[in-house]
Amino acid sequence: MGVERIPRTISIAPHGKSVIMIDQTKLPHELVEIAVITYEDMIDAIKRLVVRGAPALGVAGAAGLAIYAINQSQAQDATALLEELEKVGQEISDARPTAVNLSWGVARGLACVRKLEAMGSSLQEIQTVLVAEANNIIKEDEACCRAIGAYGEPLLAVGSRVLTHCNAGSLATAFYGTALGVIYAAFEAGKIEMVYADETRPLGQGSRLTRWELARAGVPVTLLCDNMAASLMAQGKIDAVIVGADRICANGDIANKIGTYGVAVLAQYHNIPFYVAAPETTIDMTLEEGSQIPIEFRDTLEVTDCPIEGACVYNPAFDVTPAALIDGIITNKGVFKPSELREHFE
Amino acid sequence: MGVERIPRTISIAPHGKSVIMIDQTKLPHELVEIAVITYEDMIDAIKRLVVRGAPALGVAGAAGLAIYAINQSQAQDATALLEELEKVGQEISDARPTAVNLSWGVARGLACVRKLEAMGSSLQEIQTVLVAEANNIIKEDEACCRAIGAYGEPLLAVGSRVLTHCNAGSLATAFYGTALGVIYAAFEAGKIEMVYADETRPLGQGSRLTRWELARAGVPVTLLCDNMAASLMAQGKIDAVIVGADRICANGDIANKIGTYGVAVLAQYHNIPFYVAAPETTIDMTLEEGSQIPIEFRDTLEVTDCPIEGACVYNPAFDVTPAALIDGIITNKGVFKPSELREHFE
Repeated sequence: MGVERIPRTISIAPHGKSVIMIDQTKLPHELVEIAVITYEDMIDAIKRLVVRGAPALGVAGAAGLAIYAINQSQAQDATALLEELEKVGQEISDARPTAVNLSWGVARGLACVRKLEAMGSSLQEIQTVLVAEANNIIKEDEACCRAIGAYGEPLLAVGSRVLTHCNAGSLATAFYGTALGVIYAAFEAGKIEMVYADETRPLGQGSRLTRWELARAGVPVTLLCDNMAASLMAQGKIDAVIVGADRICANGDIANKIGTYGVAVLAQYHNIPFYVAAPETTIDMTLEEGSQIPIEFRDTLEVTDCPIEGACVYNPAFDVTPAALIDGIITNKGVFKPSELREHFE
Repeated sequence: MGVERIPRTISIAPHGKSVIMIDQTKLPHELVEIAVITYEDMIDAIKRLVVRGAPALGVAGAAGLAIYAINQSQAQDATALLEELEKVGQEISDARPTAVNLSWGVARGLACVRKLEAMGSSLQEIQTVLVAEANNIIKEDEACCRAIGAYGEPLLAVGSRVLTHCNAGSLATAFYGTALGVIYAAFEAGKIEMVYADETRPLGQGSRLTRWELARAGVPVTLLCDNMAASLMAQGKIDAVIVGADRICANGDIANKIGTYGVAVLAQYHNIPFYVAAPETTIDMTLEEGSQIPIEFRDTLEVTDCPIEGACVYNPAFDVTPAALIDGIITNKGVFKPSELREHFE
C-alpha cells in the first residue's frame, strides 16, 4: 500500500554502464525493466515511449549523454568528447519535439561537460560528473514532485473525485509524479474518494500506466474512455481536473497530451477547477504563447491497425490548452495563476 | 463511387426463412453477411452489435418476430401464436434498452398480428404479413433517410468540413443513414470537403463503420481519436457537427452514443452548429426529458482487455445531450428546433 510500492521509472547503474528503465510499453500486462547501454538505444526507447513523460525525459536526456561518454565515445581528450556530445545531445533532443524537458536534460549534461572541458578535466572526470548530474536530476525531480504534491494537496477537499488525463504520474517522472503527485499527497491526507483516469487514446497511457500505478499505490481509480468524461462531469461526479504538461509558455498556455484541451473546455463548462501540475523545468520562457509550441505528429498506425484506402488519419500527440482555461499551475515553487508565471520564473 | 456501393444492412430472405445482415463486428477487416433463422440468434446478434443503430434495430425487431413465427412457433392457431409473439417480442425489446426503435419495430409487428388474430386470419397469413411488415419498415426507413438527407443538405455550405460521432450511417439504418444521410446528400450536391470521424471508443463504430462506409462511397474521410475533436475545432477545421440519436424526448433532449454530449459542449464553445439527424420513429413523446431515458451499461472488457485488481471501469453506452446544445433536429418531416418537437410530433 502506498506510493512507495511503485518501482523507480529510471535509474543509472553504478559507474554509468547502463540506464535501467521500466519498459512502459509492456505495462500493465507485465512489469519489466530494460537496460540501455548506447545512446541510439536510448533514442529508440524515447521514440517508442519505453520512457515518456516530460520530467522522466529530462533524466533520459542527461543519462543518454552519460552512457555515450562511458560506453561509446572514442574521443582521446575532453575537447573531442565535448564535440561528440554536442552532436549526440542534438540527436537525443530531436527524438521528441514537444516536451521541453528532454532538451533541458541534455543541456544540463552538456553544460557540465563544457565547464569541465574549460577546466582541463580528464575524460574520466567528465564521465563521473555526467553520471552524477543524471543522478542529481533524478533526485531533484523527485524532490520537485514531492513539492508539487505538497503545494497542490490543499487545493483538494476531503472526498475529492479527481479526473486526470494521460499519465503525469510516477511513471512520467523519476518518482512520485506531478498531477498524480498532487493526488498521492491528497490520498496520504485522506482526501481522495476516486480518481477517474481517461484512457488517453491512441496509446492508452491512462489505461495502461495511470490505472496501473494508482492501483499499485492503493489509490481508488476508475478507468473511462476519453469520450466519457463529459458524462461524469454532467452528473456532478468530478470535483477537480489535474493534468501534467509537456511545455508551459510565458503567457501560461500549456501543451499536454492530445485531449487535454477538450477536457479543459469541458471543465470550464461544468464549473470544475482545472489544474496543471509540472516542475518549473517545464516552463519555457522563450515561448510567448502556445501557438509557438512544436506539436509532434505520430504514426497513424497508432490510431488504427487497419488502414482503409482513401481514408486519412489525424494523429497529433499533443494539443495546446490556453491559459484562460487554467485555474492554477501547480509547480515545485508554489501554485500560480497562468498570468503570474512571468513575474516568478523570468 | 457513391452511396450505392454500400451493401444493404439487413434484408429478409424470400418467405422470411432467414434474416440476412452484414456482420458489423467484422468490419472493416472483412465484409461478411450472416443469416439468422431464430429469434434467439437475433437477440444475440443485437446484443453483440452484429446489427446496431437505432433505425436498423427497428427492422431487426420486426424481423425477429417474423422468423420466430415462420421457423420456430409450434402454435396451432392465431391466438396461440399471438401469445407466443408477445413474449418473444418482449425478449427482443429487452435486448438493448436505450434505442426506442427496437421496441417500436417489435410493436409494429405485434400490431399486425393482433389485427389479423382479431380478424380470424390463418397462421400462414400472419407469417406473410409479418414478413411484409418487416420489408415495409426497411422501405420506409430508406425513404426516411433520404428525406432526412434532403432536409439536412441545405444546412451545409459548399466546402463543408463535418464532424460526426459513432455511426449514424447506412450501416445504422436499412440504407443511406441519418447523420451520414445528410452527408451523402451534401456530398452528392458537391458540398463536402472532409468528414471527420470520431473513432468512438470503446467499440470503434467511427473507426470501423463510418470510415469504412464513407470511404466505400468515395466521400473524403479522416479518422481521429475522440479526444482530438477539440483540437480540430480550435483550429477552425470543423464547420458543423452532425450525429444520430437513439432516443429523442419531447423536450428535445437526445440520447446518443457515449461521447456525443461532450462533442455538443465543445461545438457550442467553438460556435459550431450541432445537428441531430433521426427519423421521427426515434422521437419518444412518452418521455418528457433526457433524465428519463434508460442508459445501457456494457461489459467493462469492452474498455480494457486487462482488468487490474482494485481498479474499476466506467462503461455507459450512451449519454444525454440536452436540447439547449442542439441547433437543429433533422427528421424525415423537416428540420426542427428541439422546442418545436411537441407541436409537430405530439
